[in-house]
Amino acid sequence: RIDGTRLWDSLMEMAQIGGTPAGGCNRQALTDEDKQGRDLFARWCREIGCEIRVDRMGNIFARRAGSEDLPPVITGSHLDTQPTGGKFDGVYGVLAGLEVLRTLEQNKVTTRAPLEVVVWTNEEGARFSPAMIGSGVWAGEFSLEYGHGRADKEGKTIGNELERIGYLGDMPAEPKPITAAFEAHIEQGPILEKQEQVIGVVTGVQGIRWYDVTFHGTPCHAGPTPMEDRRDPVQAMSLLCQKLYAEVKTFSEDARMTCGDLRAEPGSRNTVPEKVVLALDLRHPQPEGLEHLHQSLHRVVEEVQQATGTTIEVRDEWHSPPVAFNEDCIAAVDKAVNALGYSHRKMVSGAGHDSVYVSRVAPVSMIFVPCAGGLSHNEAESAEAEHLEAGGNVLLQAMLDRAGI
Amino acid sequence: RIDGTRLWDSLMEMAQIGGTPAGGCNRQALTDEDKQGRDLFARWCREIGCEIRVDRMGNIFARRAGSEDLPPVITGSHLDTQPTGGKFDGVYGVLAGLEVLRTLEQNKVTTRAPLEVVVWTNEEGARFSPAMIGSGVWAGEFSLEYGHGRADKEGKTIGNELERIGYLGDMPAEPKPITAAFEAHIEQGPILEKQEQVIGVVTGVQGIRWYDVTFHGTPCHAGPTPMEDRRDPVQAMSLLCQKLYAEVKTFSEDARMTCGDLRAEPGSRNTVPEKVVLALDLRHPQPEGLEHLHQSLHRVVEEVQQATGTTIEVRDEWHSPPVAFNEDCIAAVDKAVNALGYSHRKMVSGAGHDSVYVSRVAPVSMIFVPCAGGLSHNEAESAEAEHLEAGGNVLLQAMLDRAGI
Ligand SMILES: NC(=O)NCCC(=O)O
Ligand SMILES: NC(=O)NCCC(=O)O
Repeated sequence: RIDGTRLWDSLMEMAQIGGTPAGGCNRQALTDEDKQGRDLFARWCREIGCEIRVDRMGNIFARRAGSEDLPPVITGSHLDTQPTGGKFDGVYGVLAGLEVLRTLEQNKVTTRAPLEVVVWTNEEGARFSPAMIGSGVWAGEFSLEYGHGRADKEGKTIGNELERIGYLGDMPAEPKPITAAFEAHIEQGPILEKQEQVIGVVTGVQGIRWYDVTFHGTPCHAGPTPMEDRRDPVQAMSLLCQKLYAEVKTFSEDARMTCGDLRAEPGSRNTVPEKVVLALDLRHPQPEGLEHLHQSLHRVVEEVQQATGTTIEVRDEWHSPPVAFNEDCIAAVDKAVNALGYSHRKMVSGAGHDSVYVSRVAPVSMIFVPCAGGLSHNEAESAEAEHLEAGGNVLLQAMLDRAGI
Repeated sequence: RIDGTRLWDSLMEMAQIGGTPAGGCNRQALTDEDKQGRDLFARWCREIGCEIRVDRMGNIFARRAGSEDLPPVITGSHLDTQPTGGKFDGVYGVLAGLEVLRTLEQNKVTTRAPLEVVVWTNEEGARFSPAMIGSGVWAGEFSLEYGHGRADKEGKTIGNELERIGYLGDMPAEPKPITAAFEAHIEQGPILEKQEQVIGVVTGVQGIRWYDVTFHGTPCHAGPTPMEDRRDPVQAMSLLCQKLYAEVKTFSEDARMTCGDLRAEPGSRNTVPEKVVLALDLRHPQPEGLEHLHQSLHRVVEEVQQATGTTIEVRDEWHSPPVAFNEDCIAAVDKAVNALGYSHRKMVSGAGHDSVYVSRVAPVSMIFVPCAGGLSHNEAESAEAEHLEAGGNVLLQAMLDRAGI
């Protein structure tokens, strides 16, 4: 069994790095705060004798040797947060992995296969788009050049920022043989809490599509220009949003639509904007469902162009199709949960996770624990110490199950 | 008669300061470019013997002495532009005034009353809100403290920026007795061009209200959060826009609604924003019409709050009620247009102008000339040299009429 108090204390210590007045975290990928978080993690791992290696994408691998030279059992998640993020998203998965290693060290247990805890770079996709890019490059979904070239809103790239904070490692960002991989995470949704269950046995991840939608209008004066002479990109954007929200909601209760970022250019109050740029996120658990949403978007774009005389450009920014996790890994989690006697249910993740890309090259599954009100990507994100401990115990058992003693 | 070629050449020379690749101007208030434009204007005025004085709001007064110590006849407009502005908005009114003085100088004509050409600070309201703040402080609508304290998006204030560019003058920003004031301007709308008229005899300016509308939601994760659990400020903003556009369009063809600026915070694609901030501009030529729009906004806000569960905050940023110009000044323009034989019509301005505030303390009217396609606040803004010359001739005659020779 893991030490729930030690896990909680480490979570709280990490949360001070980039801690916000509202009690959340702003530790965006490859900032000075991210560097501090990485340094703290590496120090903690070295203290229990782990070897630390960093790859060309800044992914950190902390290794605890096994008794045999087998492919490792890995776990991990990310330390980066949203700009107004919480204390648990990602961090929990990393520190639960660390807690597993600490528990084994304390009990002088050596596994047959080595164990590794991984910190994946830029999982959130908040500073650099897309999400899960560290694990994505590592798993071969994206090239290293693509990864290094991704830029934030100020034009700073992942490659340069990795170098700046000292985390541009020399190990190739590419997979090696892996026995099994697990990732513990808060659910980030309301299901476990509503159903009063402690553990989610995660069977897969829903599909995600990201778009940059640009509405091109004609700038003109707010006063003398008659309404019917305008090609107004705000009119177009608001009409598209209203139509698409309605379509998404009536299509299926599993469908999701989020407009997380939005800006008008040139952004002068008495000028109809030249353009409006919208960052759009659509999701569905089934491939056909996601395809339906994609088609709906393009149909609504046509309708809105017709209705408003504006030109609407839709650029595909990212597509992460639905993923089903490995049966054996799911079974290992299921077995652990049953042995430990926690209430549980099977579920599909609504959020993307590094496990999506890891699953391309290794057997993977995930372990969810509840979070208060299902709230995440919010400074008020919170979770019960007891649930976090339960998830850690499941992770320990599942890893031992696959690594052997 | 003025020299149309000299006027055109001066417009083109001024347009090089802050000239954009798309052929427009970006010479926003109190930037280095604005300073260069002001310096050029001051040099031109000194070359014809004018005395230059600058007040505490950076308003520049170029004075040509009269034969008697009478209150001056003034004209002028502004040199600042929108971020993606044109070559004529404001600049034309300033340089047409300069051209009047040059013509009198060339012809060795001395008027009875002195003449002054004024450059008013920050008319556009693009960098610093509200619009017409230089003339507004001067006329007593706003206090000097309020004027100096207004900040741009980076937090830089008018007071500090005036000092930085060397245009924080020592003359009090307050009115003195004035015989009459005129302002020449491009129409910035389509009426004169459509009706093939050369001169608009402007009888007043419609009313304007500016609002900062903030939609407060609950940030949450784009994936796991069910649509019905969200308090989504983009949903609220788009619904409000659609409802209000519909109300404004059905209320009256004279009503205007513009959403010139818009942004989401924290602005992360996979997070429902915490808030959306919208800069809203509503206009109507009649006070009752503007009040009706104001009431509509507040009713729609209530409806949208009910429908979306968000909280919507409406902050009044500026209110410029409809203005009727002075009968004698309108008559002076009308007389000049008729004497010169230009086709013309009476009209109400859709845009706000410095004349709105000048009219609080002096008899005022305005002279409009057509602009291509009615387009303004756009880099493609353009006007015919012939029309600009006609407007300059009307200005000359109207000023001579009030100043006497
Ligand atoms: N776990 C998490 O917040 N991932 C970010 C990627 C996504 O948008 O789902
Ligand atoms: N003339 C002009 O563009 N004025 C700006 C003030 C307004 O918004 O009407």
